[in-house]
Amino acid sequence: MREKASGMPLGTLRGVSQVDFQSDWRTAICFVIALFAGGWQFGVFGLLGTVVATLTAWVLGASKDRLTAGLEGFNGTLIGVALVLYFDARWITVLLVIAGAIMGSVLTSALNSLLTPLNLPTFTAPFCAVTTVMLVGAPSYERIWHGRAYAAPPSAAHPGASVTFSDLWQGLFNGIGQVFFQGTWYVGLIFLIGLAFAGWMVAAAALVSSAVGIVVAILLGAHAADIGAGLYGYNAVLTGIALCGTFVRPTTLGLAYAVAGAVSATVLTASVANLFAPVGGHTLTWPFVVVTWIFLAAVPVLSGVRRVPT
Amino acid sequence: MREKASGMPLGTLRGVSQVDFQSDWRTAICFVIALFAGGWQFGVFGLLGTVVATLTAWVLGASKDRLTAGLEGFNGTLIGVALVLYFDARWITVLLVIAGAIMGSVLTSALNSLLTPLNLPTFTAPFCAVTTVMLVGAPSYERIWHGRAYAAPPSAAHPGASVTFSDLWQGLFNGIGQVFFQGTWYVGLIFLIGLAFAGWMVAAAALVSSAVGIVVAILLGAHAADIGAGLYGYNAVLTGIALCGTFVRPTTLGLAYAVAGAVSATVLTASVANLFAPVGGHTLTWPFVVVTWIFLAAVPVLSGVRRVPT
Amino acid sequence: MREKASGMPLGTLRGVSQVDFQSDWRTAICFVIALFAGGWQFGVFGLLGTVVATLTAWVLGASKDRLTAGLEGFNGTLIGVALVLYFDARWITVLLVIAGAIMGSVLTSALNSLLTPLNLPTFTAPFCAVTTVMLVGAPSYERIWHGRAYAAPPSAAHPGASVTFSDLWQGLFNGIGQVFFQGTWYVGLIFLIGLAFAGWMVAAAALVSSAVGIVVAILLGAHAADIGAGLYGYNAVLTGIALCGTFVRPTTLGLAYAVAGAVSATVLTASVANLFAPVGGHTLTWPFVVVTWIFLAAVPVLSGVRRVPT
Repeated sequence: MREKASGMPLGTLRGVSQVDFQSDWRTAICFVIALFAGGWQFGVFGLLGTVVATLTAWVLGASKDRLTAGLEGFNGTLIGVALVLYFDARWITVLLVIAGAIMGSVLTSALNSLLTPLNLPTFTAPFCAVTTVMLVGAPSYERIWHGRAYAAPPSAAHPGASVTFSDLWQGLFNGIGQVFFQGTWYVGLIFLIGLAFAGWMVAAAALVSSAVGIVVAILLGAHAADIGAGLYGYNAVLTGIALCGTFVRPTTLGLAYAVAGAVSATVLTASVANLFAPVGGHTLTWPFVVVTWIFLAAVPVLSGVRRVPT
Repeated sequence: MREKASGMPLGTLRGVSQVDFQSDWRTAICFVIALFAGGWQFGVFGLLGTVVATLTAWVLGASKDRLTAGLEGFNGTLIGVALVLYFDARWITVLLVIAGAIMGSVLTSALNSLLTPLNLPTFTAPFCAVTTVMLVGAPSYERIWHGRAYAAPPSAAHPGASVTFSDLWQGLFNGIGQVFFQGTWYVGLIFLIGLAFAGWMVAAAALVSSAVGIVVAILLGAHAADIGAGLYGYNAVLTGIALCGTFVRPTTLGLAYAVAGAVSATVLTASVANLFAPVGGHTLTWPFVVVTWIFLAAVPVLSGVRRVPT
Repeated sequence: MREKASGMPLGTLRGVSQVDFQSDWRTAICFVIALFAGGWQFGVFGLLGTVVATLTAWVLGASKDRLTAGLEGFNGTLIGVALVLYFDARWITVLLVIAGAIMGSVLTSALNSLLTPLNLPTFTAPFCAVTTVMLVGAPSYERIWHGRAYAAPPSAAHPGASVTFSDLWQGLFNGIGQVFFQGTWYVGLIFLIGLAFAGWMVAAAALVSSAVGIVVAILLGAHAADIGAGLYGYNAVLTGIALCGTFVRPTTLGLAYAVAGAVSATVLTASVANLFAPVGGHTLTWPFVVVTWIFLAAVPVLSGVRRVPT
């Protein structure tokens, strides 16, 4: 039997902040403001995806706890933002976001069913899967593609490994904003303020992880333009928040573990980008999903690190 | 201890119809007739694959229930049909079908062992995996490849999105026939008659799902030649039959769930095709396998849909 | 609580031989000698990877049993050898091996945690995953790539399918050496001597499996230069040792099962190579990992084959 719809509006709003594992309503409001600051279409399509995904889960009878916590909506948010970014604000994109959010919602339930016994969250895997499917399939569909070309990273126009000071400080904020595909520094700052409402450790973990991503990318010799755009930071940011205090206890060893995770997510960034490049896919948050699943799955056999009790 | 071989001939025959989840002997006979109507080589190599796969499972000691139900043979059927289509009727193909059917049989047992605790069937995943391995590896083996080129879809010769009436009605039947790689409308019709022996709902689900595939493909602007060949329909057909009455109860919400599944399988069709194109792989029934696993895995956490008791 | 470090030096040494499932110290010493015979860099970077991986597992609190058996080190060994082969003996490679071995160690724990309930070992999957990530990502990092090109197989310079006697006998030994990326026949022979210390059946399984790989590759018409370099043998070798006596009982049917596994691993070799070719990945031991997982996962539902009790 389906749950009553009473907690749904707040649950939907929380969906936006659950992208970063947060359920505080002030965080959620900051995130919505940040999306609209990035562009009206990100706000509108992001909310459309959140609503459709949450509604689908409610109609199919997902658990009330998950609905009101926003856990059924956040993949829809990202599906909406990503599809409007890659396919523009058109009617066909509205259709794609609705279809994609429904698919993402069912996939969320499937992963919830399969991963909960292993004590692993779904993370943004449904968003990554659905968006990759749409991106890779799009060139075969005239009504979606319509003369488009594969999107290129900033480094395609501005190659070179010499990092400027502006790359550094803007990259720091953009690493937080790129979780939602936003590459303007003050949009990243609004997201950061939102994270601060959820707790100082969350905001600190995000900032430090973004810095870790930049340092690793510079060490390996990545393109400066991509570093400045925050492309090497956002997977580190999500991994860092997840492994530092959210799911793993922040002991000394736990913090080292979180740093190792953030480094790994950064290293994977270019690999996923290159892997999908021949077929038009994008990195999305695959590195975060894969790395964080691995680091959490390892915890039960490692006596030095502990999970945060849920 | 190995089971007696008494039920084996019927079990092997049922293997052919289990591709569409059916075990009625009349369905199986229609399917064999359809394969021979499509070409002698599809009948002969399809049966060869079925026999080798079933025999392998019997020798290795698979359960009698699965053997007599045809569940150990149907991936072999498709391996035989696919390999003779892509590599022609030659002696090396006989060898490949035998090796492939043995590999597919062991993979069937492995998936059976891993997925049964999750209450998920193997579906045609072993066929997809083995055939993809063969297709991707083939260019490295002179005796298989021998001057061949990557197979192209009908749209390569006839591009364009304007769908004719003939594309529509032939596509409807071809969507059913393409489950077995058959693109002639009357072959699809024979398969449909076979499905009708298994029950009116099965045949109706197949027809409606094939239509859903066509509608979605037209909406997205796919190539008309591919739609007419049934290439956007067969994954929807398998998904529709699976989710409507076979594994999920056909309540109102259950039917909407099945339609959502058929739509998802259609959307995935182009994605899988494009994903494998650079390495010479084909769509096969991957979209059906992935989508139907996801939709079935989600059922336990959704109170609105129920599994059919087995 | 972390275990005492007493058994660590021997545990680390055993890591090198656990690549081939062996824990005899004489086998391990032969393997180290073989690596140095192949080139000082393989010995040094292989040991570096083993030490870092084992140390990481110890710091994070992996179980003492696994540490002293060498099970936490062997993926690090291969990561070290592979990265120095593909990226040369440079300081950035030292850094990559350290980072890679840490990532491989956490992945080993994750797979150990997820696969042990299914009674499946991790095998060399962590090495394959980490090395593939590094290979595919490398071109984006100027400090790693630095004017490099994708590595080509021997057949790129010497194409053709006519196999000489020298291809045959050298390929037989190279199939054993290529497990560690070594393509000189006497290095393969030293590995074989090491295996003989672990038992005659292990050495026999390695030799026969290497021969199986060569025969299958010739039958399919693979390039002679690749056969002679042992590239079609090493996955068969690992699969053969694993399925013949190590994890599956060597009954008559068990031996046939092992041969089927070795044949499957050989067939997969070209598929994995072609699959990863567009993005610069390599075959590594993926075919062995995938095939052996499948063949072991199938055992519980097959009454004709049995696992060796652990």
